[in-house]
Amino acid sequence: MSSSGTAPAYRRLSVDERRSQLLSHALGLFAHRSPEDVSLDDVAVSAGVSRPLVYRYFPGGKQQLYEAALRSAANRLEQCFAEPPAGPLTARLARALDRYLAFVDEHDAGFMALLQGGSVVETSRTTAIVDEVRRDAAEQILTHLEAEAGPGSARLRLAVRTWIAAVEAASLIWLDEGKRPPLSELRDWLVDHFIAVLTVTAASDEAAAAVTRRALAMEESDGPVAHLVTRALPVVADAGHLLGP
Amino acid sequence: MSSSGTAPAYRRLSVDERRSQLLSHALGLFAHRSPEDVSLDDVAVSAGVSRPLVYRYFPGGKQQLYEAALRSAANRLEQCFAEPPAGPLTARLARALDRYLAFVDEHDAGFMALLQGGSVVETSRTTAIVDEVRRDAAEQILTHLEAEAGPGSARLRLAVRTWIAAVEAASLIWLDEGKRPPLSELRDWLVDHFIAVLTVTAASDEAAAAVTRRALAMEESDGPVAHLVTRALPVVADAGHLLGP
Repeated sequence: MSSSGTAPAYRRLSVDERRSQLLSHALGLFAHRSPEDVSLDDVAVSAGVSRPLVYRYFPGGKQQLYEAALRSAANRLEQCFAEPPAGPLTARLARALDRYLAFVDEHDAGFMALLQGGSVVETSRTTAIVDEVRRDAAEQILTHLEAEAGPGSARLRLAVRTWIAAVEAASLIWLDEGKRPPLSELRDWLVDHFIAVLTVTAASDEAAAAVTRRALAMEESDGPVAHLVTRALPVVADAGHLLGP
Repeated sequence: MSSSGTAPAYRRLSVDERRSQLLSHALGLFAHRSPEDVSLDDVAVSAGVSRPLVYRYFPGGKQQLYEAALRSAANRLEQCFAEPPAGPLTARLARALDRYLAFVDEHDAGFMALLQGGSVVETSRTTAIVDEVRRDAAEQILTHLEAEAGPGSARLRLAVRTWIAAVEAASLIWLDEGKRPPLSELRDWLVDHFIAVLTVTAASDEAAAAVTRRALAMEESDGPVAHLVTRALPVVADAGHLLGP
């Protein structure tokens, strides 16, 4: 087939527009296939351009294209955790998780291929990009917690970073289990999980205790923490011998 | 230097003995360097044998040697979570964590290289071995919890698997922070973390609630759960508006 002069894919784009058009098609392909199964040809077909054009923008071939697509995915993921510093912390966290989990849902196969490792396109550069997203999410959460920087908050930092690892693991398990349970249930459980990790960290760390007291004070009396306490206390209260004199 | 007839490295070993001797030296090298920095020559020198001998046992070269060393590390890690099904669950978990964290401490650089990804020796086979260790640990914990298999325990399974991801992340952070805090503190925090995740899962899931009630009933009145409740309750109790009427 010859390309028609009226085909919209062949209209003149600026260098930046063309690059971002190609990246967007690449991200769409990498989202639903393993990197092994995406070729520059596929990107050219998807974007309706010639293969040489794709190579002109990404002379490093698939590896360069993959890293650029990952970079743009990382920028989007970092946006997920941006949230105005107002209102109950659980509400902010729930909104951030909704955005993050929607991203996971939308990029399912690519997310799994990226985080399960062992892919041919995985390099120290791609793992550094993934790690940057994790660190950025942790920093954003610590900012919302109004945690002081420095060695005093090491335990709190550990709590937040391990929770982020738990979110990633839960996302992979969710994909692996055919996207069950519904995302809203997974999100609520992850918020509960966060409150729980924060509270047990508060039990043995001063800085975490200060942050947790402040966070709990902002929660609403009919919000998720109150709801969690109401449901969890009876389970613990049954073991009366653990509750002290 | 010529090899002396009395050099212990050159005594006659059976095929199995020789293979396990070479693997043990390989694991020792992979434990403290990134796979990129370990050669078959290093293994030969460490084991006091010739390079051709190493190649005879591992004709696939470093990749095969690495996978075999990883396989033997995985077997050791799976042993970490083997524990008699008796006594309080937190005590069993603490002993398993002590063994796991000692392994992390002993294989620091190799553990980081393996789990941080992006290594040249990482393949779908190596990630499958790592994933098998995770799944095996989860199964062992679910057995201790006496959780029923099947869809009814999906939420409990998610809780256990995300906790394992949190343990891995905490181990990497611990290595990255120069092995601080002391391992016993990290272990106690991870046990608290487990209790917390179990309890919040119990708050919204019947199967988890049954398991948690049974687990808490076995805990001692001066054990880690009682200690955790004593320390955590005041933090929550300060937010009286969340505790209901």
